[in-house]
Amino acid sequence: MPAAPLPSEVVEFLRQPNPGVVASLRADGSPHTAATWYEWQEDGHVLLNMDESRRRLDFMRRDPRVTLTALGHEDWGRYVTLFGRIVRIESDADLADIDRLAIRYAGVPFRARDARRYSAWMRVEAWYGWDGSGPWPRP
Amino acid sequence: MPAAPLPSEVVEFLRQPNPGVVASLRADGSPHTAATWYEWQEDGHVLLNMDESRRRLDFMRRDPRVTLTALGHEDWGRYVTLFGRIVRIESDADLADIDRLAIRYAGVPFRARDARRYSAWMRVEAWYGWDGSGPWPRP
Repeated sequence: MPAAPLPSEVVEFLRQPNPGVVASLRADGSPHTAATWYEWQEDGHVLLNMDESRRRLDFMRRDPRVTLTALGHEDWGRYVTLFGRIVRIESDADLADIDRLAIRYAGVPFRARDARRYSAWMRVEAWYGWDGSGPWPRP
Repeated sequence: MPAAPLPSEVVEFLRQPNPGVVASLRADGSPHTAATWYEWQEDGHVLLNMDESRRRLDFMRRDPRVTLTALGHEDWGRYVTLFGRIVRIESDADLADIDRLAIRYAGVPFRARDARRYSAWMRVEAWYGWDGSGPWPRP
């Protein structure tokens, strides 16, 4: 599994508004997965954003090891999985982060203006990509 | 998180050819995720199928705890996550299982006739569903 940094084709892929699925670890060590919006950060991190009620916020505080699988938004035969850890969790008090995500994915700012949201930054340590029947990008 | 069995709306959703993301556990306990085809089995299991070279086959043999997130194939705002464990892994020597999956997802039998594939059955123990901004199906 290649280590970070990511090649430019993979970064370009991650900049698309792809469906994401984030995996975290429950208290008993079993996996938990959820669909998610994400935003690639040009410094090698990925931004996630969650309502304060989401259980995975607690999971990430307890064990920061996570993965994110991003599926090609036009053809999910191509996908990329990122391995890493949550290095920062902060209140998104002014909803600036979720607004940016909502505009990127839905075209409009986040609807629930009274929501209490948290942003989490995942530092990407390794990755792999797949397309159809083999590794992507092709070596 | 509701326990199995699944309500009929969720079963109906899982019968669609939805993109799936399966999470398993690496040897160090960190998560691993991959996009996958799946097939809902009417006895409360989910069929997965992997090439013999896939690392997650070893992960599942070592620790059977997995999750599957299925994203709505027309709108991934609706999704379902299944929690469970792999209870059986068998050689798909005649490619019958992967052919059924390939026909369901791609409309044609599996292309690589010399592939060595394995089928894994996940027993579903719990689940949750989400649509847009709240639990699905609505209580």
